Amino acid sequence: MRKVFYISDGTAITAEVFGHAVLSQFPVEFDALTIPFVETQKKATEVKQQINDCFITTGERPIVFHSIVKPEIRDIIYSSEGLDYDFLNTFVAPLEQQLGMCAVPALHRTHGKANESYETRIEAINYAMDNDDGQTMKHMDEADLILLGVSRCGKTPSSLYLSMQFGIKAANYPFTEDDMDNLTLHAALKRNKSKLFGLTINPDRLHEIRQSRMRDSRYSSLRQCRMEVKEVEMMYRKERIPFVDTTNHSVEEIATKILEVTGLKRHMF
Amino acid sequence: MRKVFYISDGTAITAEVFGHAVLSQFPVEFDALTIPFVETQKKATEVKQQINDCFITTGERPIVFHSIVKPEIRDIIYSSEGLDYDFLNTFVAPLEQQLGMCAVPALHRTHGKANESYETRIEAINYAMDNDDGQTMKHMDEADLILLGVSRCGKTPSSLYLSMQFGIKAANYPFTEDDMDNLTLHAALKRNKSKLFGLTINPDRLHEIRQSRMRDSRYSSLRQCRMEVKEVEMMYRKERIPFVDTTNHSVEEIATKILEVTGLKRHMF
Repeated sequence: MRKVFYISDGTAITAEVFGHAVLSQFPVEFDALTIPFVETQKKATEVKQQINDCFITTGERPIVFHSIVKPEIRDIIYSSEGLDYDFLNTFVAPLEQQLGMCAVPALHRTHGKANESYETRIEAINYAMDNDDGQTMKHMDEADLILLGVSRCGKTPSSLYLSMQFGIKAANYPFTEDDMDNLTLHAALKRNKSKLFGLTINPDRLHEIRQSRMRDSRYSSLRQCRMEVKEVEMMYRKERIPFVDTTNHSVEEIATKILEVTGLKRHMF
Repeated sequence: MRKVFYISDGTAITAEVFGHAVLSQFPVEFDALTIPFVETQKKATEVKQQINDCFITTGERPIVFHSIVKPEIRDIIYSSEGLDYDFLNTFVAPLEQQLGMCAVPALHRTHGKANESYETRIEAINYAMDNDDGQTMKHMDEADLILLGVSRCGKTPSSLYLSMQFGIKAANYPFTEDDMDNLTLHAALKRNKSKLFGLTINPDRLHEIRQSRMRDSRYSSLRQCRMEVKEVEMMYRKERIPFVDTTNHSVEEIATKILEVTGLKRHMF
């Protein structure tokens, strides 16, 4: 299995995301190692040695994705036996020309805390936690978005992702079995109608998920899952609440779809 | 302000992360627009028109970061007036040569659900939620990691990030005022000692954060903050629990530091 190094003087998360996206185009597996915080020449020299040792052991030049800002550190990694993919700098030079200005590389700019919107993000995460699963209706007026849906359709991971990745204050509210006889919107939801977004899910998949939580209960029965999904979807249609089916989608896809439909502004961190 | 488009046939999250990292090297602001799910020629033609209109209005060629897999869609974006930065394909050709194989581009491979480890991730997120803030000690044996610390030092956002980004089952446990007289580890923590990781924070910053939650309370007083931080750090040292100061660090940096020290294996999604 070909060895891959993700190296950075910061968290290496950008290097990972980028390298993972590139390598996922190839139909093979890779053996990846992430080395963050390579901030000194000493550490860079150790990493170079590690890359070179790996070449000697495997007989194949390791693939290296790095995002290192300081030239004196970067040059040490360059001088290793690794195959260097310097994805940041490849694009900086042409952009300098286009923008008519020089880049001013700074450490920790993307995943650091310098960003003034960082507090917005932490507030959004705390908001999503405090307003998960309808545990309180007191703060619904402060929400940017309120996700609705039956139990285990994906509300919690979606709210958390929206807050973490995009700084959106997302509450979520469950419809439970007790609501099913007379499915109406709570007053706090009604007066925030423009913020409502529904999630739905294939009843067979819901049954599977609920079975793994509470096997052979009424809650997890296919009949109950079918009924709840049907009732809730009817309500979405009646109330004209936009909704998305989570069955075959990741949290990234669900979150992106919601942003697309609602036009909510995303922060970037 | 120069206009930037992030375009993809998927979520466009990779394009955003990458473009944001490149552009953050420049000391100016950009006006960014993300367009996900460009999956048809019709939609691509609309996006092309939007880019061209933007060029006419502003007189400057918009910057375009895209990650589009299908050639017939990609070519439409290429033919716009935008300045194209095709960060994925730039690296695919040299890698094909190195690996001696052709890329097999597939839609939704990085942020999609095809990934079999997706369930691991949702489990980890649910675990982090259910085991936040010491609400139960029943599942500590299942944790990959248990974060410790005083109230508001960053435990919750860090646990959630570790679960969301890396699929790590992270519980967290708070030390409260009542614990301070006799700071010992709960039995469930003691028997999972190798999983413990401490967070600490500058008392002045803690005071600020707590003031914004509960102004002028004993809880938020600088004296209380100093005492709690001091006691907890002493305990970390005595019990030889590794710890990190969160004061000047983002969740990405805290999470990465924890992975580096503990050697926990990260999943990638």
